[in-house]
Amino acid sequence: MSSSPVLQFRIDLPFAAAEEAVRAALAVEGFGILTEVNVAAVFKSRLGLDTPPQKLLGACNPDLAHASLEAEPSVGAFLPCGVALREGEAPGQTLVALQNPALLAGMFSTPGLETPSLDATTRLTRALSSIGSPV
Amino acid sequence: MSSSPVLQFRIDLPFAAAEEAVRAALAVEGFGILTEVNVAAVFKSRLGLDTPPQKLLGACNPDLAHASLEAEPSVGAFLPCGVALREGEAPGQTLVALQNPALLAGMFSTPGLETPSLDATTRLTRALSSIGSPV
Repeated sequence: MSSSPVLQFRIDLPFAAAEEAVRAALAVEGFGILTEVNVAAVFKSRLGLDTPPQKLLGACNPDLAHASLEAEPSVGAFLPCGVALREGEAPGQTLVALQNPALLAGMFSTPGLETPSLDATTRLTRALSSIGSPV
Repeated sequence: MSSSPVLQFRIDLPFAAAEEAVRAALAVEGFGILTEVNVAAVFKSRLGLDTPPQKLLGACNPDLAHASLEAEPSVGAFLPCGVALREGEAPGQTLVALQNPALLAGMFSTPGLETPSLDATTRLTRALSSIGSPV
C-alpha cells in the first residue's frame, strides 16, 4: 500500500467531463461528495488573480468515516477526503490528486484506524484506476 | 514546530458558541470557512445513527493557499485545512482538532511549500490559543 501523501491520476478528459467521471467513479465505491471549492473563483474574488480551473472536492464514505471517527475522533481534521482536480499539461487532460487515507493509519497510533483507512485507499485507488492512469 | 498530524484545543464553551468563536478567531488570522459538513446529520441520514454534534469546517487563507498550490499543485488534496469540532468530555466544553499544515512541509519534498505551511500552522495555533487551551 502506497505511503505517499497523495494518490495521483491522469484522466484523458477535459476538466468538466473529468469532474463528472470522478464523481461517478467515487459513487460506485460508496463515496459521496460533501463539499466543493472552486479554487479559481476564490483566487479571483479574494486575490484578483486569474488562474486555471481547479476544484477541491470532499469525498466521504459514511461507513468508513464513522468507523474512523469511532476509532480516533481527531481524524475528523482530515475528513472528508480531499480530491483536487486541475488541468493537465496537455490539452484535454485532467490531473487528480487524492489525499491518501492509508497515510492516516501511519500518522495516528490508533489500531482501529488502520482497517477503515486502508479500505478507503483501496476504494479510492480502484475508483480512479477505472477512469484514469496513475502518475 | 509540532509535527503532530493534528493541533488540538479545548474551548470552554458549548458546541454552537465554540463554533462561532472558532470562526471569529480564524478570521482574525485571514482564514475564511469555505466548506462545512454537519457530521451528525450525515450519519443520521445515511446510516440512521444518532451521534453527538460534530462538524468539519474547511478553513482557507487565500494567500497561503495560493503560495502552497504554486509550490506543489497536488497539495490541494489537503486543502482547505480541516477543522473538526466535537463535544468535550465535560458539559460546556468543545474539542477542536485542526489538520497541522506544517506536517505537509515534511510529507512533500517541495522547498517552496515550507514557508506557507509553517506560516499556516503558526496562524492556526495563534487563533485557537486565543480562545482555547492546547490539549
